[in-house]
Amino acid sequence: MIDSKYFYQQAIALAAAGEELYQRGWVPATSGNFSTRLDASSAIVTASGKHKGRLSPTDFIAVDLNAQPISEGKPSAETELHTRLYQRFPNIGAVLHCHSPVVTIISKLVKPRDAITLSDYELLKAFDGIDTHNSQVDIPLFDNNQDISALAKQVDNYFSKHASCPAYLIRGHGVYCWGDDLDSCMRNLEAVDFLLRCELELMRFSHGDQQ
Amino acid sequence: MIDSKYFYQQAIALAAAGEELYQRGWVPATSGNFSTRLDASSAIVTASGKHKGRLSPTDFIAVDLNAQPISEGKPSAETELHTRLYQRFPNIGAVLHCHSPVVTIISKLVKPRDAITLSDYELLKAFDGIDTHNSQVDIPLFDNNQDISALAKQVDNYFSKHASCPAYLIRGHGVYCWGDDLDSCMRNLEAVDFLLRCELELMRFSHGDQQ
Amino acid sequence: MIDSKYFYQQAIALAAAGEELYQRGWVPATSGNFSTRLDASSAIVTASGKHKGRLSPTDFIAVDLNAQPISEGKPSAETELHTRLYQRFPNIGAVLHCHSPVVTIISKLVKPRDAITLSDYELLKAFDGIDTHNSQVDIPLFDNNQDISALAKQVDNYFSKHASCPAYLIRGHGVYCWGDDLDSCMRNLEAVDFLLRCELELMRFSHGDQQ
Amino acid sequence: MIDSKYFYQQAIALAAAGEELYQRGWVPATSGNFSTRLDASSAIVTASGKHKGRLSPTDFIAVDLNAQPISEGKPSAETELHTRLYQRFPNIGAVLHCHSPVVTIISKLVKPRDAITLSDYELLKAFDGIDTHNSQVDIPLFDNNQDISALAKQVDNYFSKHASCPAYLIRGHGVYCWGDDLDSCMRNLEAVDFLLRCELELMRFSHGDQQ
Repeated sequence: MIDSKYFYQQAIALAAAGEELYQRGWVPATSGNFSTRLDASSAIVTASGKHKGRLSPTDFIAVDLNAQPISEGKPSAETELHTRLYQRFPNIGAVLHCHSPVVTIISKLVKPRDAITLSDYELLKAFDGIDTHNSQVDIPLFDNNQDISALAKQVDNYFSKHASCPAYLIRGHGVYCWGDDLDSCMRNLEAVDFLLRCELELMRFSHGDQQ
Repeated sequence: MIDSKYFYQQAIALAAAGEELYQRGWVPATSGNFSTRLDASSAIVTASGKHKGRLSPTDFIAVDLNAQPISEGKPSAETELHTRLYQRFPNIGAVLHCHSPVVTIISKLVKPRDAITLSDYELLKAFDGIDTHNSQVDIPLFDNNQDISALAKQVDNYFSKHASCPAYLIRGHGVYCWGDDLDSCMRNLEAVDFLLRCELELMRFSHGDQQ
Repeated sequence: MIDSKYFYQQAIALAAAGEELYQRGWVPATSGNFSTRLDASSAIVTASGKHKGRLSPTDFIAVDLNAQPISEGKPSAETELHTRLYQRFPNIGAVLHCHSPVVTIISKLVKPRDAITLSDYELLKAFDGIDTHNSQVDIPLFDNNQDISALAKQVDNYFSKHASCPAYLIRGHGVYCWGDDLDSCMRNLEAVDFLLRCELELMRFSHGDQQ
Repeated sequence: MIDSKYFYQQAIALAAAGEELYQRGWVPATSGNFSTRLDASSAIVTASGKHKGRLSPTDFIAVDLNAQPISEGKPSAETELHTRLYQRFPNIGAVLHCHSPVVTIISKLVKPRDAITLSDYELLKAFDGIDTHNSQVDIPLFDNNQDISALAKQVDNYFSKHASCPAYLIRGHGVYCWGDDLDSCMRNLEAVDFLLRCELELMRFSHGDQQ
């Protein structure tokens, strides 16, 4: 049974987050999709193809953690990328997928590596479990794939072998970011975008050095 | 006969789009012009020389598809660039012409090519008919010309020989972008500007490599 | 005699312009100053040292065209740079001086030249008297000087020998921009900042080429 | 005794500053912390871990100038970096610590120097005591350290030997900035961020020259 009041509260919160992310230019042209966990076996996710800055409660679908809709409507084509994360990490309560310029550009630029390592930033402490700038956080990078099930399995397989982290990138596509609840997911997303923006700017200088 | 209620609705919708585009810095200093189709043989277009962030319904003119005014006022000097698109593509309902920094800069930078090819971006799927990042979309680039009729014919000639696409650039000038209706035109414009912004940033790195 | 109603109207209009310019980051940290002409022999100018995003009517002083106050208060230390322009160009009605990042950076970067030449931009047509992109507009660049009278004379001397233009730069300092009235001055300022932003971005690429 | 009315006024003013700084992207992901002086021996500082764009009066703690709380709650872990400044400079009334992209990037880029020297900018006059662009202001840069007491002593030791200035940087971390009161602190912060942004852009060009 879906708790309709809780569904509605979550939809309103995600719509407000969407408006803020759209204003920042992180979900242009109907891109991106958002979800929060409803309970141990279900989540609420954005419907397919909506303007992410003008979401209303009817633009959300309840799904089980196999990405199958359990309320009316057509969920985002990338729903399985959300539900696999809820399965893999029982503690998380929200997933935000965005296409900011920074994550798109750096995802196309960092070609030979399969992760971007962040270190020596005070802002790393925004991530749970990090208490010093003198840490390393790996943001993995996956090739884009229209076969969402295959991509979701590849991501899940990565996290079966590597330490948890708050986000991953898909090349030429965007970022998936998660957190205990929507507020901590927004905090992680702000930190990831900020840190990758710094890395991108620093690459301009190190790029020159390597010539 | 002009349906004055529909004219008014379209003017209000274009004025709202103009305010948003002005806030983004895409139509500075009275630049840009906007239109939507009224019916099979007419369109509504911005008057000449207006501040695009403060348009009122009296700042729009009805024109036939030969760019001749059919209501009072002086339509934009570039009206024929709009009406030729409505003639060429019977399905489209809106055309937005902007001067964002990104389109202006990249249009002056990409000198020897006559089109910018976009590929390996998930956001290409924002364009109708594209269902995979593994696609190519060519954004043609034309030299600027104060003879608007000549330029309109050159553009039309290009599309008589090439596949449709959602936008073209004019060198040192800006972008023309279209869609089925105003919402899809805005979606296409956001996607084009985002993708060209990514290309411009990536050119900074590849530029260094070519030295 | 100062027309107090007209003074008040001009103060309100300049305060609104100031709020917009502050939001864009073009007058940070109390920098910049603004004026409009009151009549053939006087102008209204911002008081010294005010926050330019929160101006009130009492933050303006009436001055004669020799930069001497004719109402209570201390006018901006740079008032003579405004009044000399009103003397030189009888047609102009407004002067805006800003410190945007773009004008500050490019003014420090373009070292050996005494003017920045803008050409092949459609947006040049935002300037009065320009009707084709195939034009050249020179934006002169002067060395900074705390002796405002000396600097004002240097600028005036330049314009006694060169064609008019809508703006000049002071190295490491900012831009002075003018127009027939406040609206056309804002239009010119938007166009100048946009075009210099494009030039700055293009210099990054041509800079690489010259290595 | 804490003057609860004055405490409340200061909290409201800092919350408003926080909202503005958050909108600019200078305190992302709960980063940053803010304070104002209450009297000769105490200050009000942000509580630990709060969203800096949504502060309420209960998100502030009164502390003595040894960084010990004298009201309920847990002050920011970096409180000693604030209180040492109030001890060192008896005239100052406010301290803002931010993580803007510009200060974070430049702090990681300028490796071999222990200060960034700003000169030939008109905006230097935003700082008290500077009356010409032909001045030099050194912004010192310290290595990051999770031992806040050690870092606070290192900063204090620096200022025991060097002239005062309005701000310092911590590598990979952010900026500390101060002023006579909150308004002048905001003015100094805007000027510092603007000037470092200019320096960062100029370094891109000089970097190329050095290749």
